[in-house]
Amino acid sequence: MSKNNDEIFKNVISHAKEYGFVFQSSEIYDGLSAVYDYGQLGAELKNNIKTYWWKAMVQMHENIVGIDSAIFMHPKVWKASGHVDGFNDPMIDNKDSKKRYRADQLLEDKIARYEKDGKQDKADQLQADMDTALKSENLSELRDLIINHEIACPVSGTRNWTEVRQFNLMFSTQFGAMAEGSEEVYLRPETAQGIFVNFLNVQKSGRMKIPFGIAQIGKAFRNEVIARQFIMRMREFEQMEMQFFVRPGEDKKWFEYWKTARLKWHQALGTSAEKYRFHDHTKLAHYANAATDIEFEFPFGFKEVEGIHSRTDFDLSQHQEFSGKKMQYFDNDLNEEGKPYGNYVPYVIETSIGLDRMFLLTMINAFEEQDISTEDKKDSRTLLRLHPALAPVKAAIFPLTKKDGLPEKAREIMNLLKLEHNVTYEEKDAIGKRYRRQDAIGTPFCITVDHQSLEDNTVTIRHRDSMEQERVPADQLERIIAERVSWKNLLS
Amino acid sequence: MSKNNDEIFKNVISHAKEYGFVFQSSEIYDGLSAVYDYGQLGAELKNNIKTYWWKAMVQMHENIVGIDSAIFMHPKVWKASGHVDGFNDPMIDNKDSKKRYRADQLLEDKIARYEKDGKQDKADQLQADMDTALKSENLSELRDLIINHEIACPVSGTRNWTEVRQFNLMFSTQFGAMAEGSEEVYLRPETAQGIFVNFLNVQKSGRMKIPFGIAQIGKAFRNEVIARQFIMRMREFEQMEMQFFVRPGEDKKWFEYWKTARLKWHQALGTSAEKYRFHDHTKLAHYANAATDIEFEFPFGFKEVEGIHSRTDFDLSQHQEFSGKKMQYFDNDLNEEGKPYGNYVPYVIETSIGLDRMFLLTMINAFEEQDISTEDKKDSRTLLRLHPALAPVKAAIFPLTKKDGLPEKAREIMNLLKLEHNVTYEEKDAIGKRYRRQDAIGTPFCITVDHQSLEDNTVTIRHRDSMEQERVPADQLERIIAERVSWKNLLS
Repeated sequence: MSKNNDEIFKNVISHAKEYGFVFQSSEIYDGLSAVYDYGQLGAELKNNIKTYWWKAMVQMHENIVGIDSAIFMHPKVWKASGHVDGFNDPMIDNKDSKKRYRADQLLEDKIARYEKDGKQDKADQLQADMDTALKSENLSELRDLIINHEIACPVSGTRNWTEVRQFNLMFSTQFGAMAEGSEEVYLRPETAQGIFVNFLNVQKSGRMKIPFGIAQIGKAFRNEVIARQFIMRMREFEQMEMQFFVRPGEDKKWFEYWKTARLKWHQALGTSAEKYRFHDHTKLAHYANAATDIEFEFPFGFKEVEGIHSRTDFDLSQHQEFSGKKMQYFDNDLNEEGKPYGNYVPYVIETSIGLDRMFLLTMINAFEEQDISTEDKKDSRTLLRLHPALAPVKAAIFPLTKKDGLPEKAREIMNLLKLEHNVTYEEKDAIGKRYRRQDAIGTPFCITVDHQSLEDNTVTIRHRDSMEQERVPADQLERIIAERVSWKNLLS
Repeated sequence: MSKNNDEIFKNVISHAKEYGFVFQSSEIYDGLSAVYDYGQLGAELKNNIKTYWWKAMVQMHENIVGIDSAIFMHPKVWKASGHVDGFNDPMIDNKDSKKRYRADQLLEDKIARYEKDGKQDKADQLQADMDTALKSENLSELRDLIINHEIACPVSGTRNWTEVRQFNLMFSTQFGAMAEGSEEVYLRPETAQGIFVNFLNVQKSGRMKIPFGIAQIGKAFRNEVIARQFIMRMREFEQMEMQFFVRPGEDKKWFEYWKTARLKWHQALGTSAEKYRFHDHTKLAHYANAATDIEFEFPFGFKEVEGIHSRTDFDLSQHQEFSGKKMQYFDNDLNEEGKPYGNYVPYVIETSIGLDRMFLLTMINAFEEQDISTEDKKDSRTLLRLHPALAPVKAAIFPLTKKDGLPEKAREIMNLLKLEHNVTYEEKDAIGKRYRRQDAIGTPFCITVDHQSLEDNTVTIRHRDSMEQERVPADQLERIIAERVSWKNLLS
């Protein structure tokens, strides 16, 4: 039953829609480009991923706290962070079709075509020329490459190009209704700055001592020109970021610590180790002295899910300069010479994971079309092998038949379990069909109430992955389910 | 120790900042008007309020599911919902000061002044005239009232006014980077429409049968001209909304059901019943056939926290008209004549609560400055009487002293408890001072490890509200804390 990767990815996308995990945004109005909604099961799975991250980062670490800062921030924040001046894509318009493109993506498509045509030399040369032009932000050189390599607009087919211009990826809006002109405010392109500007507030009010971290989960927005691959790159997305403040000079040590800790977080979910790899950056952003991506092998190749960045004191120093407030920490621990470290601007290690990518990773990794044929009968099923702690529905309760008091007994069990867990009740269709439906949405346990249940108060638990059944006393269900879906299994 | 209401409110605000519940947004840049950030304890409390709502609405109701739709939606959504044309405030500028005001608020301030001056007749007349002008959207009449009642600009002191114009409260931004002109997209002013446009997707993929509900928690944005009262009215805020789809004709019954259910949700937290009241609307919005507010007595008076609205089939019908998609449900249950109900556009009951207002309500209601003087000594404490399920920190673990192995024993207990709960450890300062600090942030249980603990493995639990202590076996702490902070206490 092996399928090619494209097909697997397509199947995951249609499965996500069919069962209420992910819908196209505003679908009845033919959708909104690069924006998606989470449906009734997707919202639960997404919440569970958030909870896992929050518990692992905040609850389990005495020296990490979580905040929830607003999407709107003072415009100066983005001046200080460098986003107003530097968060750009180089764009070029075709004068005939009036279509706009990212200049670097036109060139990358050309490189791919050279490679496909066996012209590896040309591909390598163009790659090198493009890298040089991008690094030096030489826009006219980018245009020259497009002209010289005879790249045509896919729509008009002409090579009638404008100049290359920088296009800022931040969304902006007008704030207030002052007659003398309203204020331009941005939707944050990352949650990190909400942590940096609150550094002093949190450190002082929480009496935090270095090293310590501030975590947050929240929406961020980027006006991506070309959005691709379902929920991989959206204009509205969600991040889970943590900034860890350390003594200057101890940044490398903590960078290594968080690389290890974050990979462990991913692998605790049971994903096979070969699916993950680190990709250390060789070209570093201006604020970083070390950076790595945690990459996962998606059907379309290894792609970044999480970044770990040693951001030095860049952000806090910038905010110190732009706000005029001292973004410093007084460290009264003693150094090797027996003197207090004193005041300094802390260094920062950032861990930044895309929640939507983690969601997609989780769906792809869990998705399986399984051949369960026996000698007698061909059969198959689709299942989501989600970790029980992440599963949207923890247990489904079925009366074997719709009569003889079985529904009443089943609902009694459900009313008890629902106080603790998201559970569901189904009485329609044959039991096998009901199992299949729960397999498809990743429910780890199906509990069936049968006639024996009325006699001895036992029920069967059927396990999603093994399809094995066990008979257990009904009054132990609460404990059994609680143990198997417990966060402890992921955290300890 | 009774204080006036203004003072109580001020104390709550400064307490919220001092202990890391709520900070002004971008404070180091002197703040952003009407936007706030939740600090390390605020984020936990806010998450707990969300969890309580989600569990009560989604987990406990078999026929309610939750979604998470995007902030960005197709612009036609807001045309269909009426927000593009009707979501306006009437604004007027003073030509000298260049300041802009809401015309109705200038008039309301004048009415208040008439009342203060004992001119009740004039106040009543102006109120009636204003209501008439607002209802008929007669903007020039609003201006005439401002002129005739000699209202002057508070800044310039002059009565040199422009015309009154409508100002839309939705924030807009530009989507995409098309050369031929980008698309104007709004930040949603309410989460409800994300539910309506997903009605078919959820109903079909979730096989939902009427009556059923769709719930969601998320950010919404309104370009409020005058923001007031801390986090009561913000430009960026969060809603918890549920749309309950019912058969036409059964809407009144379900409206009453949700009035009762939602008030019960509030009162389960232990708030005294007199603090709440219903305020039934007499003037109904164009889409509603019944509406009520659940109001709470804030220090500044009874104010809306939640609205329950019988929205008829207005929204789904509008989307049906604007999208061209049938927003209908096929009901195969039999009516009184023994025939299936067939296809119809469902009626909707909405419950809509402001998360930030609920947060403020919770803080205000929990806040107490308590005189705990004894005959020997004057003493007081500040405490937050939060319900244990909502408390940001569930337990604080203290070694009585910093030596003799007490810290090690205390950390052992903490490492066990932190797998399940947000707990904290403190070893600095006298035990009384540590109690006070936990009282101030609402921690229900303080656990002290003393020398006896090393002998018989017992610890003391000190209760926040009663300040009473009990000695319990350490190996029962997990169970005791779990029982007392359990959501079950609120849900069953």
